[in-house]
Amino acid sequence: MAETAALAKAKPVPMTQVRIADAFWDDYIRLVKDVVVPYQWEAINDRVPGAEPSGAVRNFKIAAGLAQGDFYGFVFQDSDVAKWLEAVGYLLAKERDPDLEAVADGMIEIIAQAQQPDGYLNTYFTIKEPGRRWTNLMDCHELYCAGHMIEAAVSYYRATGKRRLLDVVIRFADYIDSVFGPEEGRLNGYDGHQEVELALVKLYEATEDRKYLRLAQYFLDARGTSPSFFEHEADGRGRRSHWGFTHRELELAYFQAHRPVREQTEAVGHAVRFAYMVAGMADVAAETGDEALLAACRRLWDNMTERQMYVTGGIGSMAQGEAFSFDYDLPNDTVYAETCASIGLVFVAHRMLQIEPDAKYADEMERALYNTVVGGMSLDGKHFFYVNPLEVDPKACGGRNKKFDHVKPVRQEWFGCACCPPNVARLLASLGEYVYAVKDDTVYVHLYVGGEADFRLPRTELKLIQRSDYPWSGSISFEVHPNQADASFTLALRLPGWSPSAVLRVNGEPIDYRTANGYARIERTWRAGDIVSLELEMPAMRLRCHPAVRANVGKTAIQRGPLVYCLEQADNGEALHELVLPATGELKVREAAHLLGGVRVIEAEGIRARAEPWNGGLYRPDAILRETGQNLTFIPYYAWANRGEGEMAVWVREC
Amino acid sequence: MAETAALAKAKPVPMTQVRIADAFWDDYIRLVKDVVVPYQWEAINDRVPGAEPSGAVRNFKIAAGLAQGDFYGFVFQDSDVAKWLEAVGYLLAKERDPDLEAVADGMIEIIAQAQQPDGYLNTYFTIKEPGRRWTNLMDCHELYCAGHMIEAAVSYYRATGKRRLLDVVIRFADYIDSVFGPEEGRLNGYDGHQEVELALVKLYEATEDRKYLRLAQYFLDARGTSPSFFEHEADGRGRRSHWGFTHRELELAYFQAHRPVREQTEAVGHAVRFAYMVAGMADVAAETGDEALLAACRRLWDNMTERQMYVTGGIGSMAQGEAFSFDYDLPNDTVYAETCASIGLVFVAHRMLQIEPDAKYADEMERALYNTVVGGMSLDGKHFFYVNPLEVDPKACGGRNKKFDHVKPVRQEWFGCACCPPNVARLLASLGEYVYAVKDDTVYVHLYVGGEADFRLPRTELKLIQRSDYPWSGSISFEVHPNQADASFTLALRLPGWSPSAVLRVNGEPIDYRTANGYARIERTWRAGDIVSLELEMPAMRLRCHPAVRANVGKTAIQRGPLVYCLEQADNGEALHELVLPATGELKVREAAHLLGGVRVIEAEGIRARAEPWNGGLYRPDAILRETGQNLTFIPYYAWANRGEGEMAVWVREC
Repeated sequence: MAETAALAKAKPVPMTQVRIADAFWDDYIRLVKDVVVPYQWEAINDRVPGAEPSGAVRNFKIAAGLAQGDFYGFVFQDSDVAKWLEAVGYLLAKERDPDLEAVADGMIEIIAQAQQPDGYLNTYFTIKEPGRRWTNLMDCHELYCAGHMIEAAVSYYRATGKRRLLDVVIRFADYIDSVFGPEEGRLNGYDGHQEVELALVKLYEATEDRKYLRLAQYFLDARGTSPSFFEHEADGRGRRSHWGFTHRELELAYFQAHRPVREQTEAVGHAVRFAYMVAGMADVAAETGDEALLAACRRLWDNMTERQMYVTGGIGSMAQGEAFSFDYDLPNDTVYAETCASIGLVFVAHRMLQIEPDAKYADEMERALYNTVVGGMSLDGKHFFYVNPLEVDPKACGGRNKKFDHVKPVRQEWFGCACCPPNVARLLASLGEYVYAVKDDTVYVHLYVGGEADFRLPRTELKLIQRSDYPWSGSISFEVHPNQADASFTLALRLPGWSPSAVLRVNGEPIDYRTANGYARIERTWRAGDIVSLELEMPAMRLRCHPAVRANVGKTAIQRGPLVYCLEQADNGEALHELVLPATGELKVREAAHLLGGVRVIEAEGIRARAEPWNGGLYRPDAILRETGQNLTFIPYYAWANRGEGEMAVWVREC
Repeated sequence: MAETAALAKAKPVPMTQVRIADAFWDDYIRLVKDVVVPYQWEAINDRVPGAEPSGAVRNFKIAAGLAQGDFYGFVFQDSDVAKWLEAVGYLLAKERDPDLEAVADGMIEIIAQAQQPDGYLNTYFTIKEPGRRWTNLMDCHELYCAGHMIEAAVSYYRATGKRRLLDVVIRFADYIDSVFGPEEGRLNGYDGHQEVELALVKLYEATEDRKYLRLAQYFLDARGTSPSFFEHEADGRGRRSHWGFTHRELELAYFQAHRPVREQTEAVGHAVRFAYMVAGMADVAAETGDEALLAACRRLWDNMTERQMYVTGGIGSMAQGEAFSFDYDLPNDTVYAETCASIGLVFVAHRMLQIEPDAKYADEMERALYNTVVGGMSLDGKHFFYVNPLEVDPKACGGRNKKFDHVKPVRQEWFGCACCPPNVARLLASLGEYVYAVKDDTVYVHLYVGGEADFRLPRTELKLIQRSDYPWSGSISFEVHPNQADASFTLALRLPGWSPSAVLRVNGEPIDYRTANGYARIERTWRAGDIVSLELEMPAMRLRCHPAVRANVGKTAIQRGPLVYCLEQADNGEALHELVLPATGELKVREAAHLLGGVRVIEAEGIRARAEPWNGGLYRPDAILRETGQNLTFIPYYAWANRGEGEMAVWVREC
């Protein structure tokens, strides 16, 4: 392993130093604290009436010897408890809460008791197949669950300073480190679902023990090498999968194990696994200065965002395998675009931003965040999308039409495989980490989220107060409070790709500024109370899609600021596919304070084009297209499906 | 069972009385005789180098005690032998061939020896599960295989007069009749795959033994009644399917067993099963005068053709379950439209035409025949489509994009589940049966296929010679040769729905005629040598699709005569989705004698609309659509994919 120097990376500002106070996000974060996290606790304790049981907490109790019974749920059920704890950690970092902390401490105690004497921790194998640890890494998510528990431990430790869970995962990680590796006599393998890689880097950052970084790098280095570990492993168990069928041929690309990670060129396979892998790759590249790994990250990022990403920031267009399909294949209706995959995209973007602050990463991070991620949750915090379609006809969903089985026209209460809701919870609870970064004497503002933050620069400390009505308005202001006179540092404000022009003022005076990689850099000597105001032009605009995307040919999508808009049946009537938006014509922005929690809608004069009259039969040579004017109302995509079941479309025909 | 009177139905003219001589069809029928049937014989004998073995003939030999070994193939493998024999029968009816007949007689002898002492005949259960007959009717196709063997026997008997196979299936049918029925102690069930119903009606027609008609009616009457036979049966085998998994919930609609057949209102479930069922229903309704059954046939026909049929005559739009999805759901790319399903549609149409000669049935029969059925086979007779897409991007097929796994961009050599090629063979070999029908003193011409035919009317016999260059030209002529002077009868010529106008002449003089249900009725006293000429206007025309079909909104398809046209990459370059056809502008018909076996292509001035320039990224607000003129060349749909792999599209954007 090359022990090269770490890259000089920008550091995110820890949760404890960022206090979000933002009209848009406060509601979501409050929902996470007041609704999602409490609900999730009930869910993993099997106390939600009418819901499918989870078994997750009970599994830990059984493994700890505190309850009797059999393991219940998916093989990765442990990760639900871990994600819950991780979200709790972020909430506590924002604001301590003794009651919540007591509940979490109790859970942590059970987890600690479920840990085996040698450090192993996994309730499925402990309860159900005690002799079969590490025999099916491809299917069984053992290291994936370990990774989530490590992330939980780091989050909880950083928030509370309590080491109980951190010590548990250190013992577990040490044990994993003794099992895996390229050396003779060790298991030369890796997990079917990437996650432990990025988690081990977090553990390294928390403990400063380089062993964990090396282990993360080992898992990445081993992946996809020849001969294939998964093939070898499958042979060892008679090619039987965990689910009982026989693998004749393994689809190694599903696991991104088809070739060494440094040689991968395209986003392939299961989208969440892919994104978590690239996040781990970026982490290791940043810490080791591994240029080949970093080049692979850039290549995979570019392929993902420039050829395989929906305008909503969704990735993984194929239900089969929850996977990427191929370049420019982005169907709007049979789409997958799992909420967790967009969260993974946010993770990757966040890490790439630390390595090379470039607005192209922040732009897509913002796109995923304000559209698919937030859209994954209902306005009441109680319903979730797993799949995020860009076009829905409720008639096509459910029933006997299996092609759309995975697409739900309204958000669901919870899921048997409950990965998305807790993933949304942990991301929103940790949103503070995504807003700023510091590198040398530059403060980067990646996201326009109101609140206060404290920064420690090499030569000064400062407080920054951000205020805005984002994403509704592009007027953002910053109040700068260095803790010393004549503090000299750079404030680098992202100029979003969607904004045609920006005006920057300091204390009311327009200033000249240098732009580097999409950031306006204000280099000056600051005085307490300096006001920076940024005016981002935020027009409602028509987007066109790359001509190779068949699904969007002849169509346009509306975006304003970071928000992608859509047509809903509730505003525009049935048969949205009959609607056409002229290529010219005003897009009017209207404030709708009482709609969907308060949004701005976009209105335009459109056309309903319908072949009429139509009496029987499917195909007619004499059908005449009748066009009638219709006012079109677009709402933000994230807010769709909050008014019952109905059609929705992001892309609309253009004429 | 109601023993009402048979409906006064039109009778198709037997194969032996129709001698096709037609520029378009002769080639196909010759291919069936010279290529498909010989190839198929090699295939079912496992003698095609490199092809997956079939085992079908060998299974019969093993069951007959003539070979050792285990059963090989699908549970319905026997039907491949039956379909081959059925096609051979039709070929022999057209022209005896001692060599072919000797091979068939040999096969029949093996089949006879494979029959069990009690009359049972099925190699899977005989070899593999001898004690488990009729324990899994839902999955195991026992009666389906019986039905195909009955059809083979009737075909072979009608062609050759030989009773060997007919006697085998009579014994088998008698045995089935002793096993099944509503009476106490009998198995009150039906098959998962309909087929035996229509076959039993053929056996009734061949033997005039009404028992078989009653058995067919019984199977239809029992289907979908409550409590469900399939549910009961599944309980009886611990809900284990034949393929090893456990059925928690049965999807009864897949088998059209969700409600009694007379109460069904929509085409649902597996499309081939559906079509074979409706064909059987029509048969039984015709023979019994069962008006409720006939009403159901009409209802299901209308739903299928007016809401769930592709413009190519394809049905069953969903790969999952090879099934219908729901009204107006006709995606062009993820389509299924199995060749066998369109053949089933032809079967239904043919039977409905016998009950009520109405051009609406013949129009759709013709549509399926000239587009999907013929398109199912390559111009060399050696390659076949199972799935018949209306839009193909080869990049989307195969590889890791499982969504399009079922769609092949070029015809395949043969299939593991080899249902389509022999089905095409038996239909084309029996095409003569579909051309004419006789009812009372009316001769119906349903299809414009050249050749001679002999008719026996109540008061006269006659020979009709049909000549045409159909489907390329709408000029058709008939030479009428009654075998007596002053023969008075009606010649009823179909006026296809696609033709805006028709001119009829007798001996060169325009005549007035009465039209009934889409047929021009020429009632007169005929003299030998009378010439009837029909001039069908056959413009190339733009079709529009019902506005509820989302896939085709804003698009047009080109049809001329019965032929639907398409764009192929070979003529129009890549990225067919960029092409636009103006709503006005000439569609020029051009003879291309050396293209694709001789076709007429349709040319039009079109537009290639492409957003340019495009440098990176997927979504741009500033993309400008650049339109350049491009000549578009449309070829007949049936002839696509005969020039290697490339894009294809039936529906093209209209502006």
